[in-house]
Amino acid sequence: MNKVKVSIVGSTGYVGAEVVHGFLSHPGVELVYLTSESFRGKKFSDIYPVYRGLVDKILVSTEEVSYETIGRESDLVITALPHGVSSKVVPQLIEAGCRVIDHSGDFRYKDIDTYTRSYKLDHPHPELLKDAVYGLPELYREQLKTSKLTANPGCYPTCSIIPLTPFLKAGLIEKEGIIIDATSGVTGAGRKEKLEYSFCELDESFKPYGVTGHRHSTEINEQLSFACGDETGKAVKAAFTPHLAPFKRGMLASIYCRPSKLFEKKDTEAVIDVLAKYYESEEFVRVLPKGVLPDVKCVSGSNYIDVTGVYDPDTGLIKLFSAQDNLGKGAALQAIQAFNVMFGFPEGTGLKALTRGV
Amino acid sequence: MNKVKVSIVGSTGYVGAEVVHGFLSHPGVELVYLTSESFRGKKFSDIYPVYRGLVDKILVSTEEVSYETIGRESDLVITALPHGVSSKVVPQLIEAGCRVIDHSGDFRYKDIDTYTRSYKLDHPHPELLKDAVYGLPELYREQLKTSKLTANPGCYPTCSIIPLTPFLKAGLIEKEGIIIDATSGVTGAGRKEKLEYSFCELDESFKPYGVTGHRHSTEINEQLSFACGDETGKAVKAAFTPHLAPFKRGMLASIYCRPSKLFEKKDTEAVIDVLAKYYESEEFVRVLPKGVLPDVKCVSGSNYIDVTGVYDPDTGLIKLFSAQDNLGKGAALQAIQAFNVMFGFPEGTGLKALTRGV
Amino acid sequence: MNKVKVSIVGSTGYVGAEVVHGFLSHPGVELVYLTSESFRGKKFSDIYPVYRGLVDKILVSTEEVSYETIGRESDLVITALPHGVSSKVVPQLIEAGCRVIDHSGDFRYKDIDTYTRSYKLDHPHPELLKDAVYGLPELYREQLKTSKLTANPGCYPTCSIIPLTPFLKAGLIEKEGIIIDATSGVTGAGRKEKLEYSFCELDESFKPYGVTGHRHSTEINEQLSFACGDETGKAVKAAFTPHLAPFKRGMLASIYCRPSKLFEKKDTEAVIDVLAKYYESEEFVRVLPKGVLPDVKCVSGSNYIDVTGVYDPDTGLIKLFSAQDNLGKGAALQAIQAFNVMFGFPEGTGLKALTRGV
Amino acid sequence: MNKVKVSIVGSTGYVGAEVVHGFLSHPGVELVYLTSESFRGKKFSDIYPVYRGLVDKILVSTEEVSYETIGRESDLVITALPHGVSSKVVPQLIEAGCRVIDHSGDFRYKDIDTYTRSYKLDHPHPELLKDAVYGLPELYREQLKTSKLTANPGCYPTCSIIPLTPFLKAGLIEKEGIIIDATSGVTGAGRKEKLEYSFCELDESFKPYGVTGHRHSTEINEQLSFACGDETGKAVKAAFTPHLAPFKRGMLASIYCRPSKLFEKKDTEAVIDVLAKYYESEEFVRVLPKGVLPDVKCVSGSNYIDVTGVYDPDTGLIKLFSAQDNLGKGAALQAIQAFNVMFGFPEGTGLKALTRGV
Repeated sequence: MNKVKVSIVGSTGYVGAEVVHGFLSHPGVELVYLTSESFRGKKFSDIYPVYRGLVDKILVSTEEVSYETIGRESDLVITALPHGVSSKVVPQLIEAGCRVIDHSGDFRYKDIDTYTRSYKLDHPHPELLKDAVYGLPELYREQLKTSKLTANPGCYPTCSIIPLTPFLKAGLIEKEGIIIDATSGVTGAGRKEKLEYSFCELDESFKPYGVTGHRHSTEINEQLSFACGDETGKAVKAAFTPHLAPFKRGMLASIYCRPSKLFEKKDTEAVIDVLAKYYESEEFVRVLPKGVLPDVKCVSGSNYIDVTGVYDPDTGLIKLFSAQDNLGKGAALQAIQAFNVMFGFPEGTGLKALTRGV
Repeated sequence: MNKVKVSIVGSTGYVGAEVVHGFLSHPGVELVYLTSESFRGKKFSDIYPVYRGLVDKILVSTEEVSYETIGRESDLVITALPHGVSSKVVPQLIEAGCRVIDHSGDFRYKDIDTYTRSYKLDHPHPELLKDAVYGLPELYREQLKTSKLTANPGCYPTCSIIPLTPFLKAGLIEKEGIIIDATSGVTGAGRKEKLEYSFCELDESFKPYGVTGHRHSTEINEQLSFACGDETGKAVKAAFTPHLAPFKRGMLASIYCRPSKLFEKKDTEAVIDVLAKYYESEEFVRVLPKGVLPDVKCVSGSNYIDVTGVYDPDTGLIKLFSAQDNLGKGAALQAIQAFNVMFGFPEGTGLKALTRGV
Repeated sequence: MNKVKVSIVGSTGYVGAEVVHGFLSHPGVELVYLTSESFRGKKFSDIYPVYRGLVDKILVSTEEVSYETIGRESDLVITALPHGVSSKVVPQLIEAGCRVIDHSGDFRYKDIDTYTRSYKLDHPHPELLKDAVYGLPELYREQLKTSKLTANPGCYPTCSIIPLTPFLKAGLIEKEGIIIDATSGVTGAGRKEKLEYSFCELDESFKPYGVTGHRHSTEINEQLSFACGDETGKAVKAAFTPHLAPFKRGMLASIYCRPSKLFEKKDTEAVIDVLAKYYESEEFVRVLPKGVLPDVKCVSGSNYIDVTGVYDPDTGLIKLFSAQDNLGKGAALQAIQAFNVMFGFPEGTGLKALTRGV
Repeated sequence: MNKVKVSIVGSTGYVGAEVVHGFLSHPGVELVYLTSESFRGKKFSDIYPVYRGLVDKILVSTEEVSYETIGRESDLVITALPHGVSSKVVPQLIEAGCRVIDHSGDFRYKDIDTYTRSYKLDHPHPELLKDAVYGLPELYREQLKTSKLTANPGCYPTCSIIPLTPFLKAGLIEKEGIIIDATSGVTGAGRKEKLEYSFCELDESFKPYGVTGHRHSTEINEQLSFACGDETGKAVKAAFTPHLAPFKRGMLASIYCRPSKLFEKKDTEAVIDVLAKYYESEEFVRVLPKGVLPDVKCVSGSNYIDVTGVYDPDTGLIKLFSAQDNLGKGAALQAIQAFNVMFGFPEGTGLKALTRGV
């Protein structure tokens, strides 16, 4: 079998490195280029000593090896670049003939105005938005199969969209008044040299941040609107609030919504049943039974997202809960899941054992 | 000056021990009895070696020294007992002539049916509920001055009631649809020999728990209803969801509510202004300015509660945030604040320096 | 290819569960029985929800399925039982016809008196000690190939023996005065319902324990003596002191020893050279270059042990350092490495990708 | 009573801020200037929000307020500056008429060559070394009373010197072959914007660092030599190895040494007896009884150092253990203890309640 030639642009951030990790146990991939502007000439394992002897590939700068070359010599390029940079780089890669999975926010929106407002940036290639596929295999599997440009979803959007979609599609909850309260581990902030992410500032800390106007709000709402059948992407205006907690990997969303008249049997079993039916054939969405609640440690390192819900008779609300690894299903491993769909591998290839019991 | 004679019943749990800690720097207190059924005959500092040389008092069992004796020889007894036990012990202490601050849920409710439903327990002395004072000095300062029996508030209720009360009292938010999403450090679970609270199970973990029917829901709602002027305690039905995070001390509440028509100037300054005005003379409620959000590490070890809020123009919601130490303002130090009120000390006596920068 | 039939006795402790985890990505193994006395009838994934959908096998009690049956229907049984229990169970399994890898201390010694003194236990089957193979593939690879009973090494012994052996075998350090100062993550204490291992007691804690007479001392010294060519196992009396640190997985040893006259070129390069030459063909011993020191996070989840050393000109000492995962190379994954040797698989089978960058 | 006027130069690092914290509960101190070059014009509580309402003093730059002014208007200046900077600033302050406690290494040595070799720096004022007092009250109490310039000891030196001094002074252990293996919490690295101290790099990490030639080695050895009566400061050449562990505050030393012929009764009681007698009148040295070992959590936030030891019959070694808070007895609070001696306050003034049980 010919292996798929994959390059990773921006391979030494936490997301890029987790893509490398994910491909370690994938039998169908050959890594061609790992790029890094900061660490050119060093080995990948110099930056991540944990991979000494496993990934000793030399990092190249895109000054040495052009995007044109990378794109020409790769079947797929995975970009882990900041937003505003991806929008310039990705078109060059596509032009060179490869397919792309991009981790930034630059190609996740269908509505260019929403992007511009959310990211305060002009987009140099808005014409690409239309055909870019939002890389959530559970929702866009068919489109992914032939996708040239896959926009890997944001971490908070993934764990918001997965639990809410079955209810919105079936009209079982009200579109209005959805509240998403979510918490991320610290890797979500990236590999940054900033005092605010230092051990001494974050150990024994817990806090909200970005409590109004967080970029992921608009990404979440566009997708939730599509789930309601609203093509403008503006029907849902869920409130979103992120928090930062002292663990490395993991993300939990606690979601509050109000059942519609179509949600007839008002109990927890009925809530779980909606999720279980919708995701019954999905390998990486685990619907937890009544009495079991998600915990980020149970998905840490993996591509799983654990979801469940309850009906609260005291308030008449449905509460939904989801847990994923922010670098796993929330980023790098979801990209590999999408890769498997795009290149015809069984969807779980390479993604099975990436977790541990304690 | 004669010192106030204080005994602590149940002194070796985390709450009891934090009361001992809090009194260490209080100039007006003499500790009479520290009781412990599990560790009778040992020194307090055998159980908490950190206090070696500071608190070497011998622990006594209430089999050796009766509640009658403890109550007779103390001006105040602070009880840190499980609910269902306090309701039996506290009446004996009061009978013996002392005043009491109780940490359980047994005397926090005015409505006995709400208590019975919440705790699934019969109450042997419901007649005491009427005169028991809910020990939140910010709301019940006058009543505390002469209180015989003070019911120290629950941790989640404290950080929910403090930010919401100014808005509910002034009718600035809707009573309906309030959502309280809160997170506690692990000391909140008590000093317990249980696998689920072991380091290996909780490090790198984050999860919701008790997502329907948590006891603190009804305590919160009774007090919020009183704030609305509803004497039945049933006007407000806020939804409450607790989470457990991997830090020892601290609690954060993120609260979502909808402004009423009376809330005219819809911006963040107006939200903060409501809090700032209401609490301007309060020593332990710190209202954070716009752009600063609470963090549990900034209140760890202290009796402070940091609060603030935003108006979210995208959803029209008010989001309120509060952080406290679950053992501090959420339990033991709040009891000392109430003690200061009850016995005529300046309210901050002994409570100032109990925190640290990192 | 016929798969090797493997059963795990005591599968729900941290070591047993990590063996299950390790075999998840092993292509040549079929799990037959997973036993648990505490959780019979439950699914393995009920105890470790992280494995939901991956390992849903029903746990059986050895009251239901006898050791005789387990031994008869398995090619290999891995026992993760307390010492004193293994010595009774393992002979029954061997009698039934299977091979065994045992995780207790019961079969690690050649000298029965040393065992008896260390474990304060009589051994019901001392006759098995002679042929039991100490399961360190780097030292006993040939013997493992035909081993009927493999005694998986202790965690502290593994990270002490690996760095010291090359020096002792070549006579490059003095046998006298070796000092081993080591630190373990909390999983080393097992899956226990004890207050002392609770999150609140261990978070922000660091302490020595077992500072005289720790059982692993005698295990270490017997093996180090063998490395010196002393068949009595008593030539080396290294001092050993363990510590407990607030992380889940990982173990670090800092070892102090004095070069002998045979160690001529007194510099760090020479120290590293000894290690590098000795382990040059070993897949799981990574000798770090000058300037790079081991860190437990770089081996967490894996079967690697990272080792290096320095010559300290100020004191004339050699300092050696090693890091491993206490559940990985220190226990369960080392057992799988030994399994691979025993059953003819390439030694790294299933053990490659079990780590992650952050 | 007139308060002592104190200024703190470099008040926003972790050490400077902990000095501020320590003085919060000191009745005899008035803070005059808090300097910060990075944050001039901000409030101290802007940098450490935990002190909002407690320490809102405006930070000044030494460009605005000269060292001459600070020194003239203060009775004492505490400097928390990098080495190489202190050696230039401190003489200016002394010249202006105040007394100084300096936290750098610049005035800790008696032997200028040892300083130069250790810090790779020329010293502009070596003439000050002779009269500078090493700020360990337990050893230099008399000299501190009249000290103009107090050199606050390093953190590792404090927890090495305290346990070893009683044995060396009495000749009870050999001077040769002492090994000090020590571990620090992350605040020891300072308040730094560096990737290596980020949460994601240090959580679940444990590692040695600076394993040869660490600066604290020579500081330790000079003081240990003085304890042996060697005025050259060169008689002792203890080996020192630091490690970094994932907790914020605390430091533990495990020390290995060999009893001399004068140590006759070779048992643990005798080891502890040496410590207990030597420190029996010391308020902040707690000698732990047999069976109790130090734990950094038991000294966190405090000025205590907990020490104990064992005699190991298997190796004939004495093992000594000490735990302190690296910012407490290891830095800022020890400076306040020295301050109390220098200015005639009872030695524990303001230092009692600065710890907590959990």
